[in-house]
Amino acid sequence: MDGKTRILGIDPGLNITGYSVLDTDGNQFQIVEGGIVRSKRKDSLGDRLKEIHEGLTEVIQRLKPDCAGLEELYSHYANPTTAIIMGHARGVICLACAENGVSVMPYAATQVKKVMTGNGRAPKSQVQLAVATQLNLDSIPEPADVADAAAIAICHHFLSSRPTSIL
Amino acid sequence: MDGKTRILGIDPGLNITGYSVLDTDGNQFQIVEGGIVRSKRKDSLGDRLKEIHEGLTEVIQRLKPDCAGLEELYSHYANPTTAIIMGHARGVICLACAENGVSVMPYAATQVKKVMTGNGRAPKSQVQLAVATQLNLDSIPEPADVADAAAIAICHHFLSSRPTSIL
Repeated sequence: MDGKTRILGIDPGLNITGYSVLDTDGNQFQIVEGGIVRSKRKDSLGDRLKEIHEGLTEVIQRLKPDCAGLEELYSHYANPTTAIIMGHARGVICLACAENGVSVMPYAATQVKKVMTGNGRAPKSQVQLAVATQLNLDSIPEPADVADAAAIAICHHFLSSRPTSIL
Repeated sequence: MDGKTRILGIDPGLNITGYSVLDTDGNQFQIVEGGIVRSKRKDSLGDRLKEIHEGLTEVIQRLKPDCAGLEELYSHYANPTTAIIMGHARGVICLACAENGVSVMPYAATQVKKVMTGNGRAPKSQVQLAVATQLNLDSIPEPADVADAAAIAICHHFLSSRPTSIL
């Protein structure tokens, strides 16, 4: 470990789940890998959940993060069915982490924005620019899901000492 | 198979997931096994999802059902967070079925009641009595989660030919 912590940030979704794996020595961040796990729209819900679970399990087992941060689900979806289906995707993500002994902490989108920019209502573009700055990158990681996942990982680093329960 | 179909009925929950496995030759039902999978309230959400996933996987791999019926989530929870968390549990249940090649069909509680009693608003006790009758049992299967899961399996038998999508 060399005193480094490896953090997995996850931006969950049924279609696209973004992830970023960052190493930090407490002062600086280094991006190890960023990517997305897709599920095929034409597949059944069960098969889509399997694709998400398998994809994320592969990432966790290969990169062996010490801990993970996961975006909290926004519970005020206009369509409650959407929120429930999103809960299915998030369920298999939490499962993949638990099966591999990786503890997960949830962060609300406003918390992530606040940590990254000082403003809980900052526009997405400003958060993504802050990600590039924190990671010493010349450009914003793409696709946006990867940058969002990196923001969650950075947020986890700064907030993970706070007492809370995983939901 | 001897022309029999083995149906797994699942009544999903984060605390208690009830299941019933029934064999049918098209005319009569025979209960193979009924039981519950519990998760420990004191555990993290990830560990609870792992307990549900492992418990149901064990049942599926041991009893090898041909197909499964699963209660649809009621999307009008007073607390949307509850609906989302329930979605997490249902997600790992759908995953356990998909991983073992068992197709899942969803049924609304009103559909199950209608099939069992002819009345979509029948009281729970009436549905449970209908389960005992269909299964030729002297008493209602206990706990109630097992009887509920058996009702879903019976409903699946009668409705599984209808065209629908899994949600």
